[in-house]
Amino acid sequence: MDEMTPAQRAAVAALEHELLGSIPLTRAMELSVVHYTGDRLRLRAPLAPNVNDKGCAFGGSLSSLMTLACWGLARQVLLDADQVADIYVQDSTIEYLQPVWGDLTVDAAAAEGQSLTDFVSMFAVRGKSRMTLCATVPGVDAVAARLTARFVAKRREERTE
Amino acid sequence: MDEMTPAQRAAVAALEHELLGSIPLTRAMELSVVHYTGDRLRLRAPLAPNVNDKGCAFGGSLSSLMTLACWGLARQVLLDADQVADIYVQDSTIEYLQPVWGDLTVDAAAAEGQSLTDFVSMFAVRGKSRMTLCATVPGVDAVAARLTARFVAKRREERTE
Repeated sequence: MDEMTPAQRAAVAALEHELLGSIPLTRAMELSVVHYTGDRLRLRAPLAPNVNDKGCAFGGSLSSLMTLACWGLARQVLLDADQVADIYVQDSTIEYLQPVWGDLTVDAAAAEGQSLTDFVSMFAVRGKSRMTLCATVPGVDAVAARLTARFVAKRREERTE
Repeated sequence: MDEMTPAQRAAVAALEHELLGSIPLTRAMELSVVHYTGDRLRLRAPLAPNVNDKGCAFGGSLSSLMTLACWGLARQVLLDADQVADIYVQDSTIEYLQPVWGDLTVDAAAAEGQSLTDFVSMFAVRGKSRMTLCATVPGVDAVAARLTARFVAKRREERTE
């Protein structure tokens, strides 16, 4: 993986602080944000709090972490361009391909054919933008789980009543 | 909703005990199993431990609870027929349609065109069976979230080495 710049290191720390502070379940999952390089974001969580009845990773933890990794990446690329947005997941498709018997690692990136740069440009112009992101969980010798999800970002507006 | 039989009440209590005992994240979500009538299962969880950065239900909690409701229903119909299985989710599609601002309720049932009876019969004969289940989260005046997921059940085998 690419080295992080000092700004990217700061972004990793800020994003982790925000997720842990605003979403209680991330604390229960012991989520950590470990890497961000402008177009990829990596999250991690230990197995113990995320285990299922079979002793491997709980599907709900995998789906939550994959959704959060994509959400965090979309959020961070907008913040890098000084854009503040509320970001919502619209729909997702998840494939559970292999059981995960160790700690959970999740990598998020743009889905094939999608551009984070276009997503940010569109948002800057229109205050609203959509894109499809993809998250994967590396397994022993192949991908263990994969999520593809569509997100919409909307400019946070002050109420004027 | 239909009244539960005494056996169904016992199944609800046993399933809740099992989920809370074997999957730590269900304790963090404060999951409860509230209703089971042979072909439908209802789970519930309070909003507070399942909230997101916007003050509504976290998508990861919704997806986890919807997956667990389907998993629990598949498990329970097999147990009702004295069949013990390991049940795995293979893939799922989730639509997030409306934000959920209150406590989370999730209802699971067979997906359209699918039969729980056939699922159990096939398992009894072959020791392996698949089916598609559907879970919904009721919203204010329409469905707030919907999951459709494929599951496989396999007979639990003793290792003979």
